[in-house]
Amino acid sequence: MGNGNIVNLVVIGTVAFDSIKTPFGEAESIIGGSALHFASSASFFTHVGVVAPIGEDFNMDELSFLKERNVDFSGISILNGSTFRWKGKYGYDLNMAVTIDTKLNVLELFKPKLPEHYKYANFVFLANIDPELQSLIIDQIKNRDAYVSLDTMNFWIEHKREELLDVIRRVDMVVVNEAELREITMEHNLLKGARKLLSMGPKTVVIKRGEYGVLMVNVEEVFLCPAYPLEDVFDPTGAGDTFAGGLLGYLSNVGEVSNETLKKAVIMGCVMASFNVEDFGPNRMKSLTHREIKDRYSSFKKCIEFGDVNL
Amino acid sequence: MGNGNIVNLVVIGTVAFDSIKTPFGEAESIIGGSALHFASSASFFTHVGVVAPIGEDFNMDELSFLKERNVDFSGISILNGSTFRWKGKYGYDLNMAVTIDTKLNVLELFKPKLPEHYKYANFVFLANIDPELQSLIIDQIKNRDAYVSLDTMNFWIEHKREELLDVIRRVDMVVVNEAELREITMEHNLLKGARKLLSMGPKTVVIKRGEYGVLMVNVEEVFLCPAYPLEDVFDPTGAGDTFAGGLLGYLSNVGEVSNETLKKAVIMGCVMASFNVEDFGPNRMKSLTHREIKDRYSSFKKCIEFGDVNL
Repeated sequence: MGNGNIVNLVVIGTVAFDSIKTPFGEAESIIGGSALHFASSASFFTHVGVVAPIGEDFNMDELSFLKERNVDFSGISILNGSTFRWKGKYGYDLNMAVTIDTKLNVLELFKPKLPEHYKYANFVFLANIDPELQSLIIDQIKNRDAYVSLDTMNFWIEHKREELLDVIRRVDMVVVNEAELREITMEHNLLKGARKLLSMGPKTVVIKRGEYGVLMVNVEEVFLCPAYPLEDVFDPTGAGDTFAGGLLGYLSNVGEVSNETLKKAVIMGCVMASFNVEDFGPNRMKSLTHREIKDRYSSFKKCIEFGDVNL
Repeated sequence: MGNGNIVNLVVIGTVAFDSIKTPFGEAESIIGGSALHFASSASFFTHVGVVAPIGEDFNMDELSFLKERNVDFSGISILNGSTFRWKGKYGYDLNMAVTIDTKLNVLELFKPKLPEHYKYANFVFLANIDPELQSLIIDQIKNRDAYVSLDTMNFWIEHKREELLDVIRRVDMVVVNEAELREITMEHNLLKGARKLLSMGPKTVVIKRGEYGVLMVNVEEVFLCPAYPLEDVFDPTGAGDTFAGGLLGYLSNVGEVSNETLKKAVIMGCVMASFNVEDFGPNRMKSLTHREIKDRYSSFKKCIEFGDVNL
């Protein structure tokens, strides 16, 4: 299933069927999953390779919109059984998903394996999966300079804390939400929590705050990014992974990690997430254009900039 | 009690004795109140005049730090009885005050009256008091070009809705928190709510979001301001009024209301609020210097700025 392209950015995560109910409508068994949302965003900027398991019930035609953006699917393994399924709903507080049902299905059998040409990618994103599998992926990377980033969730923080701390030690960037940061570091204050997490190994911590934006912290920098203001948020599913896709996709595009590029990358992540929530699943990402991305980046920047003062 | 100075910015609100408990300590009967917190901030930028009632138990020496910054107290009336008292506490969610006890005392007798030289001020801030009293103040303003701003709270939105909407129609700017905006406009989405509030009369809406910053909206502009990131928030009492004091104090200092100055003023408001929460009551504002204000404005700006992208 490869397409001969070089892969610059690898994502390891899930491809899923989601059933979602929001105050604005519902969608039954639409494609989703962390790797899919990530790739639908990152593929606007760079050559993405996807590592994820699917079941025999998954029709690869569903991914044709990613194929058109040169996403490499040679890391997708078709396993015996059904594709991972998630069913959830949101109330008017769209920051808060309520899980109704999770069927792991093929995810229970998943042993991620990097195709040979993925092992030299410059950027790797370990989406929210078992930290032992995340470590297993890092073992396979052959590019010593690869920039590795990870996401996680409360379940792993609570049930595989040691394994999670082990893999956190090995990555360059951690991308988590506020609650996850607090649970990992046992610090309520975000800045203190971020500094504590930095002391555990990663060079940069990116904290997702939903409709309140993003905080990025490293040794030299504290960067405050508000969220792009939207009048209509339709479905927040996948916003976090679309954010990470914009963030790492942009970094991979410029090929350089500095505080200047990191800040722009965080903004780009917010821009991509702001599009994703405008429709169910990855629908908005299907019609999205580079022109729209550029325009929203500029109008976002305009909403944030201000001048110096003379006192 | 006047000092002969011209008054550029008038605040109408309360002077109080607060008893406050936070997870980091407690303070008994310290000075507070909306007008006091506002003046302690705005007085760094302009000549402030205060209109508020105090009781016979209030020692004016408590306000000497404001006197040194040329605050005009001729609008303070000493009424028979005790000064307004508020007792409250905060949990670790410092966005949320829990009121334990309120004693209105002299506030129940308060009929605000502008001293003659206050009537020509260029800026007026109607802090959170009965909207009928806010209207009464507007009736007394003689400067036709005065820029008038108001704050309010859930109690008035629920119990004096019509009177509140009447005074909102007459002001230039409304400064409220997220919950108040939602309750006034009955719109959950902040942008939609802000636009609805704009349609009710004011030219600019400023929405305070606590640790998440501020959103400013008018017909031409949406401005997103994150909060200044602090490792230690000690006491959030008065943060909203200190914010408004920085905002209107700065505007009064430059003497011009444009979108450019409004944005800087919002940032200045956040800077001032970030100092205020570092200690109980107005304690931090007593030791604060212009140098510290300038430095924090610059470091805040550095935490927000980012570059353009080439895609």
